[in-house]
Amino acid sequence: DMARRKMIYEGKAKILYEGPEPGTFVQYFKDDATAYNAEKKAVIEGKGVLNNRLSEFFMTGLQGIGIPTHFIKRLNMREQLIRQVEIVPLEVIVRNIAAGSMAKRMGMEEGTPLPRPIVEFSYKDDSLGDPLVPEEYIIAFGWASQQDLDDIVSMALRVNDYMSGLMHGVGIKLIDFKLEFGRLWDGDFQRLALADEISPDSCRLWDVETGQRLDKDVFRKDLGSLSDAYTEVARRLGVLPSNVTHVPTKPTPIN
Amino acid sequence: DMARRKMIYEGKAKILYEGPEPGTFVQYFKDDATAYNAEKKAVIEGKGVLNNRLSEFFMTGLQGIGIPTHFIKRLNMREQLIRQVEIVPLEVIVRNIAAGSMAKRMGMEEGTPLPRPIVEFSYKDDSLGDPLVPEEYIIAFGWASQQDLDDIVSMALRVNDYMSGLMHGVGIKLIDFKLEFGRLWDGDFQRLALADEISPDSCRLWDVETGQRLDKDVFRKDLGSLSDAYTEVARRLGVLPSNVTHVPTKPTPIN
Ligand SMILES: Nc1ncnc2c1ncn2[C@@H]1O[C@H](COP(=O)(O)OP(=O)(O)O)[C@@H](O)[C@H]1O
Ligand SMILES: Nc1ncnc2c1ncn2[C@@H]1O[C@H](COP(=O)(O)OP(=O)(O)O)[C@@H](O)[C@H]1O
Ligand SMILES: [Mg+2]
Ligand SMILES: [Mg+2]
Repeated sequence: DMARRKMIYEGKAKILYEGPEPGTFVQYFKDDATAYNAEKKAVIEGKGVLNNRLSEFFMTGLQGIGIPTHFIKRLNMREQLIRQVEIVPLEVIVRNIAAGSMAKRMGMEEGTPLPRPIVEFSYKDDSLGDPLVPEEYIIAFGWASQQDLDDIVSMALRVNDYMSGLMHGVGIKLIDFKLEFGRLWDGDFQRLALADEISPDSCRLWDVETGQRLDKDVFRKDLGSLSDAYTEVARRLGVLPSNVTHVPTKPTPIN
Repeated sequence: DMARRKMIYEGKAKILYEGPEPGTFVQYFKDDATAYNAEKKAVIEGKGVLNNRLSEFFMTGLQGIGIPTHFIKRLNMREQLIRQVEIVPLEVIVRNIAAGSMAKRMGMEEGTPLPRPIVEFSYKDDSLGDPLVPEEYIIAFGWASQQDLDDIVSMALRVNDYMSGLMHGVGIKLIDFKLEFGRLWDGDFQRLALADEISPDSCRLWDVETGQRLDKDVFRKDLGSLSDAYTEVARRLGVLPSNVTHVPTKPTPIN
């Protein structure tokens, strides 16, 4: 019963509720879209439903190649059961192609391929605008140890390989994406697991042929319909929720 | 003969001329002061003379503890002979206390001690505002190898130990400072050496007792006379050039 469930945290795009078992949460995907540190806001009908499905799809696939994640199972259209973790307060960003803040920082044109994938870290703090931080800050302030960071970088690069392949298979170039990691306990052992979400909210996805944006940049830069873009990603991956009605369908040839 | 010497590069604070031997340069210290990426400018009479002396003093001391530097010898009031290096295009910043851009980025009060010294890197490019860069960018773009960075961090931390001690001895707290490194060839072997300058232009120096600024922040934040501040540093270290006249002298007691 949703009404009696205890809310743990409401963020910009999701709400966490107490889960049915200790150590679990229910992650509810809202339709809220925000950009530029929540200066730009909108409600995009159906976004939460799509991201819940897509994040399930990616997390399940990553678990399949042995990357520990918080994901347990999808509960309904907007909710998934997850393991509670202690979030490492970092945005772990993996880049294949220069775009967004990196292109700006380095004076590079968006779309310039990088000589190799780059992993960088931002300190997750909205009031500071999620500033880029050197690994030295992370270690000095105790947000993570050097060992944690090494593990995070390895996992992030594996996620990049998997996601790049997955996207390539459906004609999409994975430009960059953001991950969050958290600590969970397996008995007495603590380990890092992928948390939060993977979705077109947290990735840059460009159509291989046309370069068309299929991610949150459509909203950031007013490039068209965000729900059309996310629906297209879901359609190509074959993970459309059954009751999303505005799917572009091909006419069935009669002969 | 200055007039016939070939100028190699004019920067914001110094000019490099061709040196007397191949592989050498003459580094001339100007009186120009700039801040905020050269948006704020002034000429501070005598600054070049003081920085030439102070950089000589620090570089010589560092060479004495085995840190390779570009410094060969001082030539006159404003010039020093240096070895030509291929500059690594990074500002290597060492911090003991939060101040400047780090305090701003992290929302920390200036003066907050850091749990341990932090080394960070900015990409030396005025048109981009010398942006902070993760080590991953440095390696991906080939500005330095991981081995180079490890060597630079070790040397930077040794410089920090030496300079902290030196300053502590004269009642000054070393808050942070900027270094530049370059590559030079010893026969067939390439190695990294400390280059550019170490002076109150490139350090934050606070009086231990009063917290008074004795560095370029006096200029950045209009806190008083910059040449008085630098003269005070030089006076405490006993490295005042003989013809600087405005030294605050104690009245000689007659008895
Ligand atoms: N498994 C988890 N356990 C605990 N917290 C999590 C987990 N997964 C994600 N989170 C956190 O829950 C929040 C998800 O909501 P979101 O709308 O993304 O918030 P925010 O606006 O803070 O980014 C994030 O702060 C994220 O760090
Ligand atoms: N030994 C050296 N060999 C070659 N270049 C050097 C050496 N030492 C310093 N430099 C470079 O010379 C310039 C010194 O002048 P400066 O006024 O500091 O210039 P800038 O405005 O570029 O910082 C810097 O660009 C610095 O990187
Ligand atoms: Mg979030
Ligand atoms: Mg300089």
